[in-house]
Amino acid sequence: MTFWNFFFNNKKTKIIENTIKNTGTKIFIENLKENRQKLIIYSSTNKDINLHDLEKLCDSVGWVKRPIKKVKIAIDNSFLTIAIFYYKENKKNLIGFARATSDESFNATIWDVVIHPQFQGKGLGKALMQETIKQLRYHDISTITLFADPEVIQFYKGIGFVTDPDGVKGMFWYPV
Amino acid sequence: MTFWNFFFNNKKTKIIENTIKNTGTKIFIENLKENRQKLIIYSSTNKDINLHDLEKLCDSVGWVKRPIKKVKIAIDNSFLTIAIFYYKENKKNLIGFARATSDESFNATIWDVVIHPQFQGKGLGKALMQETIKQLRYHDISTITLFADPEVIQFYKGIGFVTDPDGVKGMFWYPV
Repeated sequence: MTFWNFFFNNKKTKIIENTIKNTGTKIFIENLKENRQKLIIYSSTNKDINLHDLEKLCDSVGWVKRPIKKVKIAIDNSFLTIAIFYYKENKKNLIGFARATSDESFNATIWDVVIHPQFQGKGLGKALMQETIKQLRYHDISTITLFADPEVIQFYKGIGFVTDPDGVKGMFWYPV
Repeated sequence: MTFWNFFFNNKKTKIIENTIKNTGTKIFIENLKENRQKLIIYSSTNKDINLHDLEKLCDSVGWVKRPIKKVKIAIDNSFLTIAIFYYKENKKNLIGFARATSDESFNATIWDVVIHPQFQGKGLGKALMQETIKQLRYHDISTITLFADPEVIQFYKGIGFVTDPDGVKGMFWYPV
C-alpha cells in the first residue's frame, strides 16, 4: 500500500467536537497527514457500516474471519457502534471501529475495538475509546466494562480502566 | 419469616424440562419442601417481572437500592431474563433472577444473578445458571461472560466458567 504516506510530528491527541451533518464528528489528531495533505478524521455512531470494509479492517489486525451475517446481527443488536474514518475522493475509508452491548441503563460492555495497523500509535485508539465512553456516559451508563487481551491492558489503564476492582473477576464460559 | 420450613435431604440438582404454558419451565430440585409439601420451582424467560418483587429479592441479598425506572429499562434492553419462582396460593413467589445483555450473535454478559438467601445452597443458583447458558447457547452465542465477586468465583468455576483465559482481563471504567 504505497499510497500511504503519513507524517506525524507528535502524538498529542486533541478532540474537537464539531458535529457535521451526515458525516459524523470531526476528530482532530494533531499533525496527521497523508501526502503532505492534512488528514481529517471523523467518528460516527451511524450503524450504516459497510460490512466488507469492516471485514477488511478486522483482517488487517489478523482477527479470525467471522460470517458477515453474524457480524450484521451483532451490529444491529449492539447499543452503540463507533466508526472512525476519513474521506478520500468522496469515499469513506474505515480505519477504526468499536461497539458496545448495553442494558441502556446501568452497564455496557465494549467489544471489537480495532484500529488499522497503519494508524496505530497516533492517538486514534485513545480518541475512539474516549468517544465510546462519552457516548455511553451521555446515556448515563455508569459501569463500562470490557475484556482486554494482555497486550492492551496498559493501553486501557491509560484511559482509566481498572482490572479486577475489589477482586471482581471477568469470567468466560465457552462451549465444550 | 417463620412460614419458611424447608427440608433438603440432598443438594443433587436435576433439571426436568417441561415447558408449561404461561408458567415457565419446571425445575426439579430434589427434596425441596415447604411445610412437608414438595415445592415445585419454575423458571421463566418471560420479561413480565413484578419489579417490586425483584426489588424485594435484591434487598434480601443486601444490594444497593436502584431506581425502579432504571431497572425497567435494563430489563427491557436485556437480551434474556430468567426468573425463578414457585406458586403459593396462585401467587408467584420470585426467589431467583438473572439477566444477560447480548449482541444476539457472538457474545453475552450475565448480570444481576441473585438467589433469595432462604434458598441458597440448594442447587438453585446452579440451575439458574444452567438455564441461562442453555438459553444463550440455543441462540448460538459462544462467548458467555460475567463479572464475579470474589466470593462467587468458585461457584462459577463449578459451572464451567474460567477466569482470565489466555491472560484476558475483565476491566472496568467508572465515572470519576
